[in-house]
Amino acid sequence: MIVDGKIKAFGEVMMRLEAPNYLKLEQARQLQVLYVGTGVNILSALSKYGHDTAMITKLPNNSLGDAASAYIRSLGITTTDIIRGGEYLGMYFLENGFHPRPTKVTYSNRYESSFCTASITEYDLEMLLLDTSLIHLCGIALAISDKTRESVLAIAKKAKQLGITVAFDFNYRPKLWDNQYEQARPYYKELLQYVDICFMAEKDAQYILNMETSETEQQKQIEDLIPKVAKKFAIHTIAGTMRKNDLMKDRQWLQGFIYRDETIHFSSEYKLKILDRLGAGDGFSSGVIHGLVERYPHEKLVEFATVASVLAHTTYGDSPICTEDEVWSFMNNNEVQIER
Amino acid sequence: MIVDGKIKAFGEVMMRLEAPNYLKLEQARQLQVLYVGTGVNILSALSKYGHDTAMITKLPNNSLGDAASAYIRSLGITTTDIIRGGEYLGMYFLENGFHPRPTKVTYSNRYESSFCTASITEYDLEMLLLDTSLIHLCGIALAISDKTRESVLAIAKKAKQLGITVAFDFNYRPKLWDNQYEQARPYYKELLQYVDICFMAEKDAQYILNMETSETEQQKQIEDLIPKVAKKFAIHTIAGTMRKNDLMKDRQWLQGFIYRDETIHFSSEYKLKILDRLGAGDGFSSGVIHGLVERYPHEKLVEFATVASVLAHTTYGDSPICTEDEVWSFMNNNEVQIER
Amino acid sequence: MIVDGKIKAFGEVMMRLEAPNYLKLEQARQLQVLYVGTGVNILSALSKYGHDTAMITKLPNNSLGDAASAYIRSLGITTTDIIRGGEYLGMYFLENGFHPRPTKVTYSNRYESSFCTASITEYDLEMLLLDTSLIHLCGIALAISDKTRESVLAIAKKAKQLGITVAFDFNYRPKLWDNQYEQARPYYKELLQYVDICFMAEKDAQYILNMETSETEQQKQIEDLIPKVAKKFAIHTIAGTMRKNDLMKDRQWLQGFIYRDETIHFSSEYKLKILDRLGAGDGFSSGVIHGLVERYPHEKLVEFATVASVLAHTTYGDSPICTEDEVWSFMNNNEVQIER
Amino acid sequence: MIVDGKIKAFGEVMMRLEAPNYLKLEQARQLQVLYVGTGVNILSALSKYGHDTAMITKLPNNSLGDAASAYIRSLGITTTDIIRGGEYLGMYFLENGFHPRPTKVTYSNRYESSFCTASITEYDLEMLLLDTSLIHLCGIALAISDKTRESVLAIAKKAKQLGITVAFDFNYRPKLWDNQYEQARPYYKELLQYVDICFMAEKDAQYILNMETSETEQQKQIEDLIPKVAKKFAIHTIAGTMRKNDLMKDRQWLQGFIYRDETIHFSSEYKLKILDRLGAGDGFSSGVIHGLVERYPHEKLVEFATVASVLAHTTYGDSPICTEDEVWSFMNNNEVQIER
Amino acid sequence: MIVDGKIKAFGEVMMRLEAPNYLKLEQARQLQVLYVGTGVNILSALSKYGHDTAMITKLPNNSLGDAASAYIRSLGITTTDIIRGGEYLGMYFLENGFHPRPTKVTYSNRYESSFCTASITEYDLEMLLLDTSLIHLCGIALAISDKTRESVLAIAKKAKQLGITVAFDFNYRPKLWDNQYEQARPYYKELLQYVDICFMAEKDAQYILNMETSETEQQKQIEDLIPKVAKKFAIHTIAGTMRKNDLMKDRQWLQGFIYRDETIHFSSEYKLKILDRLGAGDGFSSGVIHGLVERYPHEKLVEFATVASVLAHTTYGDSPICTEDEVWSFMNNNEVQIER
Amino acid sequence: MIVDGKIKAFGEVMMRLEAPNYLKLEQARQLQVLYVGTGVNILSALSKYGHDTAMITKLPNNSLGDAASAYIRSLGITTTDIIRGGEYLGMYFLENGFHPRPTKVTYSNRYESSFCTASITEYDLEMLLLDTSLIHLCGIALAISDKTRESVLAIAKKAKQLGITVAFDFNYRPKLWDNQYEQARPYYKELLQYVDICFMAEKDAQYILNMETSETEQQKQIEDLIPKVAKKFAIHTIAGTMRKNDLMKDRQWLQGFIYRDETIHFSSEYKLKILDRLGAGDGFSSGVIHGLVERYPHEKLVEFATVASVLAHTTYGDSPICTEDEVWSFMNNNEVQIER
Repeated sequence: MIVDGKIKAFGEVMMRLEAPNYLKLEQARQLQVLYVGTGVNILSALSKYGHDTAMITKLPNNSLGDAASAYIRSLGITTTDIIRGGEYLGMYFLENGFHPRPTKVTYSNRYESSFCTASITEYDLEMLLLDTSLIHLCGIALAISDKTRESVLAIAKKAKQLGITVAFDFNYRPKLWDNQYEQARPYYKELLQYVDICFMAEKDAQYILNMETSETEQQKQIEDLIPKVAKKFAIHTIAGTMRKNDLMKDRQWLQGFIYRDETIHFSSEYKLKILDRLGAGDGFSSGVIHGLVERYPHEKLVEFATVASVLAHTTYGDSPICTEDEVWSFMNNNEVQIER
Repeated sequence: MIVDGKIKAFGEVMMRLEAPNYLKLEQARQLQVLYVGTGVNILSALSKYGHDTAMITKLPNNSLGDAASAYIRSLGITTTDIIRGGEYLGMYFLENGFHPRPTKVTYSNRYESSFCTASITEYDLEMLLLDTSLIHLCGIALAISDKTRESVLAIAKKAKQLGITVAFDFNYRPKLWDNQYEQARPYYKELLQYVDICFMAEKDAQYILNMETSETEQQKQIEDLIPKVAKKFAIHTIAGTMRKNDLMKDRQWLQGFIYRDETIHFSSEYKLKILDRLGAGDGFSSGVIHGLVERYPHEKLVEFATVASVLAHTTYGDSPICTEDEVWSFMNNNEVQIER
Repeated sequence: MIVDGKIKAFGEVMMRLEAPNYLKLEQARQLQVLYVGTGVNILSALSKYGHDTAMITKLPNNSLGDAASAYIRSLGITTTDIIRGGEYLGMYFLENGFHPRPTKVTYSNRYESSFCTASITEYDLEMLLLDTSLIHLCGIALAISDKTRESVLAIAKKAKQLGITVAFDFNYRPKLWDNQYEQARPYYKELLQYVDICFMAEKDAQYILNMETSETEQQKQIEDLIPKVAKKFAIHTIAGTMRKNDLMKDRQWLQGFIYRDETIHFSSEYKLKILDRLGAGDGFSSGVIHGLVERYPHEKLVEFATVASVLAHTTYGDSPICTEDEVWSFMNNNEVQIER
Repeated sequence: MIVDGKIKAFGEVMMRLEAPNYLKLEQARQLQVLYVGTGVNILSALSKYGHDTAMITKLPNNSLGDAASAYIRSLGITTTDIIRGGEYLGMYFLENGFHPRPTKVTYSNRYESSFCTASITEYDLEMLLLDTSLIHLCGIALAISDKTRESVLAIAKKAKQLGITVAFDFNYRPKLWDNQYEQARPYYKELLQYVDICFMAEKDAQYILNMETSETEQQKQIEDLIPKVAKKFAIHTIAGTMRKNDLMKDRQWLQGFIYRDETIHFSSEYKLKILDRLGAGDGFSSGVIHGLVERYPHEKLVEFATVASVLAHTTYGDSPICTEDEVWSFMNNNEVQIER
Repeated sequence: MIVDGKIKAFGEVMMRLEAPNYLKLEQARQLQVLYVGTGVNILSALSKYGHDTAMITKLPNNSLGDAASAYIRSLGITTTDIIRGGEYLGMYFLENGFHPRPTKVTYSNRYESSFCTASITEYDLEMLLLDTSLIHLCGIALAISDKTRESVLAIAKKAKQLGITVAFDFNYRPKLWDNQYEQARPYYKELLQYVDICFMAEKDAQYILNMETSETEQQKQIEDLIPKVAKKFAIHTIAGTMRKNDLMKDRQWLQGFIYRDETIHFSSEYKLKILDRLGAGDGFSSGVIHGLVERYPHEKLVEFATVASVLAHTTYGDSPICTEDEVWSFMNNNEVQIER
Repeated sequence: MIVDGKIKAFGEVMMRLEAPNYLKLEQARQLQVLYVGTGVNILSALSKYGHDTAMITKLPNNSLGDAASAYIRSLGITTTDIIRGGEYLGMYFLENGFHPRPTKVTYSNRYESSFCTASITEYDLEMLLLDTSLIHLCGIALAISDKTRESVLAIAKKAKQLGITVAFDFNYRPKLWDNQYEQARPYYKELLQYVDICFMAEKDAQYILNMETSETEQQKQIEDLIPKVAKKFAIHTIAGTMRKNDLMKDRQWLQGFIYRDETIHFSSEYKLKILDRLGAGDGFSSGVIHGLVERYPHEKLVEFATVASVLAHTTYGDSPICTEDEVWSFMNNNEVQIER
């Protein structure tokens, strides 16, 4: 696979409004603001790795849209593909949990946002895909409204026609499908026929794609199901992660896998602590895409992506911002504690 | 007029998200949060003056609703009349202007909020008005949706029937009526038949009520039009303010008026600087209501209300929080600069 | 036991001034402010559980009193029973420890506060207890001055006469009794004759009430001593907690117990981390009171109260602010890490 | 007058707790902290001018005392003369006014502070004055308690005996004398017999010293009364300021005067804006002391002191922190707006 | 003049470290950080007006360079032309004055910065100018080091050869030329032969270019000298501003002029207040460039540029961030105080 | 050893600019500022232990130098020995790591600072050492420039001549010696002939002093090498620490040793968590110096110093600020979690 043009992502940009210092919202007089989304996170990391990236989305033509746009640009993402209009920016309010109190996310304007109400005809697809070598899509846009679902499917189809690599993250969110896998199934299946690179877990194969396995252990299930998915939908690359928690939830073990050339490769297992978990999965996916573009050997690729995800747990905000150097430096010497 | 029960207000509670230090939203990483609304502002001041107050509104049953509720309670307002449900809390983002750059307000979820989508049947009117002696309504709820308009009218009618004093603030917002006075006119007229105390300006009489005057100067227009409105709609008390700005907009002259017992009384003219202009008008209205409840003589009443409004310009946030003592102390000696 | 009226607490409200980010006071240029106290904490939780609550205390009639009052109201506690006057608000400065550096608390105006210098005659006891079904008292007010001691005893006695349930928390603070148990003993004994619900530990029975046990292990001591206390003082309900620390002090095991109907019930043991330990014990007591009012079976009651205390360690500030839903949700599924 | 040793001040050090951004205390969750006092202010400026200074006071031996001490040291003041013990640090809470809303100061622990309860015997006077050439005293310590009054008088007397220059600031605070000049009069008179340099206004002469003038204009009154005071009490230097406000109170005219060698000299009149008015008077006094030590000619001296006071209005906090260079630079060229 | 390609600027990017709230540096424990420079400011505004912009500079290849780059991108400026290497980022510490206390700027690493030590050979001039239609240069780079001077001259010469419009801002900083105009003169003269658009004042003509006028009033001097400069150096457009202050320095009158087609046009005079004066001159220059690119008539052009500069005084930071809409909206209606 | 005069340190003072909350620099809009250095850290602790201390260094004569000076004074260190002049203050930007992401330090103006460019002739050595009983030097000044190296050697030699105790911390920083031990070796050896008290590790003996050991375990190597160093260079006291980390790097085991009177003494091993690791080694050294001055027995001395270092990990900033009481209180009872 050769990627010469831009890497683009289609998806929602949301405002994240966070109560600081583990406060509940009713205790906070100040909120911290970021602008995030799966696509933003993926492209943020890829920009740090030196790729030319651009976000495709719709933002309102007001101060909130300006602010989101400025923030995304600061991450190194080109914003000239973004269309402006509609009424609102999607938002979520974040109350960080402190174990065992869970983190709480409250959405606002989820369904009325400019992105959610934009129809595919508003995007100039020909133009947007002209200079694109890889497009990233995700399961949230597939779920959130009829319009975004239609858009995701149309973009995937068009990209496939134009020979552009299509990467897709399952990102299944139960609430958006009324907790019913059957609702989601046909759309996931439809989309998968256009997909080249897929990010998913063994549970997605079981519940969304309705595939069966006799294995009971997670790694075995992955080894059994993922190749089946790849074959059934003719997807050349499938990747994902496995997590284990310790009792207090503040230390975790993370391991990545990649299926490619008909083999599954697992990374080492990394122990980590969590500063900000949101977007850490996107740290893995973007690492995989980078490795594919750079044609890393499989073992190196899955190791790179997993370490990138580990580091994404250690930086503030949803969007990974570690550089390639920082990933390598960790892989070569994870004992360094102060770099002077 | 005797007021024995609670003073209540029906209206929206919004989250105010403010970029600090005159930043534009795209420059801010932190926003300051308050929970405001005309009704909240009125009752905040009246609570400070010692009255028993309660807010009637609908808030979402989530962290945002909890936060709004906690904040309102801190102002001294009873929240047990608030119903919970629906999806969203209305919001506005505030970018403070610095003259000559104007202040910019960006709304979010204006029309999808729990309040805006609540129908009158959700409120147990009988129960809510049982212990009420005065109810405050405002032109925003009359404008914002068919449901809130229906509610305002129903509440006013019911209150009138029960002998509860009805106070109404014109609060005309052009955008909410597509900039067309004709759209608003019939509803204002319908509502006015239930109103006892009305807050308005001479412009409202001209443009909303379509009344004419041959006068050209503001004070003359007030003296001409306000009595006509009072007579036409049988409203016993009408009050409002006049403002003049200096060139740089940071110093202002404020003067209040009250029409009552068929006479108009004007307060002294006060010079003031502005810390936070939002809600300063509500500082006047609440001062008038307090004066009426306390049966102040007209001159004292209009003076008290105007000073209350002056002070409302000097405190942070939409909601006036000066006590009766602070108003009197200003009226008696506005030279004091440090109270030790 | 049936509780129809309000739940009230009598006790001190203090200003908590905290150096942020583990700074020592000499490093801090900004302090974070809360208004706290055992009674406030208890009522904060009970308000969250839906009870009608009111604080009985005395606050100075100045800006500090206003601020304390506004804060308490925001927690859902009625403040109309609070009397105003005197000179000062009690304060403490909090320098958070970072293990093994201990947390340091420096009091200011402890003995000169409005509360501490108020005599029982200033409170209109008849009126205050009229609409009360349960009154919460604590050992700090019993200790801090002759006047507050006299008040606690008078309130307990009066409440008993009126058939109001009396809850009492031992809250023994050595410094307030010159480190001498004998000083405290007679007053605790006098008070216990009026008490229906008591919060204490096995150490309180040994040292304050001077009771003996041949057991050496904590749980055995509880099983031996607590029933004896209940019998001797005719207290129908006694509850408390046991804690164990790990080496680094940042992880803890917590277990609650309740003695009722002549049996002791122990909760499961919960492992927890600590965001803010102050007030976590009050999280347990308020959970017990809620369970009693709601007539939970004993096992459910002690489990609920213990989980409530666990969660109180995970929220900022002295006052527990988790809702009943949040407690249940934890009990049903303590694996959830993000609630979307 | 020759000053070879240290310049010392005797007086209270208080904690200033300020609600930021013009908030009222009930709106603030964070307070800004400084440690201030007339003596601290005077010595802060004199340290900036290059003098060797030391504070004489009593601070509690706890975290608050440590913090006050560290802050004072950062201003350049030696703290080794400070004795430690007692219970409390005096405090005041500052709610900044926004004209016409006045600034509000609420004291806490005013009378129970370590300083206020310290008797003269606790200070080793001989030792403290050994290396001292000038001692600054003020009217607040003369007022606040019997013990501090006794101390001020004893120190003044002792200093006089030892040939140390005694500077005294009238600093009359009505509340501390029950608003009765007669209460204060004998103590001021007693003290003045030891004073060499005195800071006062014409009103002090009239009301505290009970002297009469037939003049009605302020400058004339000064010219009439100040020489009489100087003669009556044999004080070689008397200095003070006159202020005029504009309507909105945010611009002021300031003019200084000094009586010396039987003549009064007035400075130019300076227009100024106010960032922080507290301590600005001390900016004048310390300028005068500096000018006397440096033997400036009278005209230069009063000009220097007045400009120093002007600049003290433009820096944050009670304590003046402008250097001698900054004062001169202003005097030579008050047009510079950016120094690069 | 037609501008089809990108607008670029060559110049330094500095870190601005600002003590908040008018504090002096010794009072601040937190500093606010921005990344600024004449080129950044010019391009920030032009990006807001819809132009495609890119910064040419050298930044260190470390965290500071990354941070500067991210910030510039957030302003809408392309950073791919920036070269990375060297040791340091130039910095300045900003202590905001409060009249009459002047603002103080303290530089750090001024002469050792990556930019200051970069030689012209490090920049791939051919490549950088390939897609450029206008290049902005400034007098600071002409002054700061031999290397930057050489670079500015080389870039101007090369641009002239390629038919690219050259804009130059005199930006004379005395300290950088040892306060000697003669030092600067030859280089300014050399550069001016390549310049198409020049930003300067009448003082620059007199002192740097050594031209004489018999006029004494500022406007007359401009009318006399600017045309002479234009003729002598064959510069088609020269523009600049005139300022007047009121006594307290917080209100100013601003007026712009443009010389073009052999005529001088003056804008209206605008009264303004100042939130942040740094970079306000760049607000004018960028307005002029925009007007030229958009071929505004002269009167409209100078009015637009002056209003843009007025607004640049009212936003935080050095870099203008008002949109074209905001400028027009002000020009059409400068009475609006709240935009809802 | 008797220490009657002041304890002084010679070394650099740097500005530490820290991105808060684990942010990377590109995410931060605010930085936290401290002024630090090995000498400052040592003297900070010794001041807390009651010693009379003074810093010898050179600071620029501008706002940055004033700020550094004020901060150092607040720590209790006399600043009158500091000379002023030169251009810059050395700085470092701190991005706190979150394991496994390492902490990153970016220096600015390291080599151009006032300190780094000051030659020994600028310091009045005779005068500076006149009232000194012990002088602390460190390996950073030995490395950073020819001038500082010359100064360190000259000061050590002079102090030795005057009979002043010389303490020296190896503080080897590879980057400052181009990662070549041979470069550093001769200077360390030259300096050691003047040293009385030395802080070092077994690695320093091996690599810098080129000494060999057949031992492989750390403690054995210390026991073998340290006495050899002491003998070879006639150093009466050598001390240092050993650290072990757990897997996640947030818990550590610390143990101190001291060689004295021809014996090595090891402290207990302490487990600790880390709030701020910078300067924690200086917490140990200053504890050793205090113990030597106070003539603690060896066992008590090494225990005190190790606990002091443990506590230095638990306070914010480079400079240890725990008092002697706090160290003792920990040693006597490390179970206390809240001191009320």
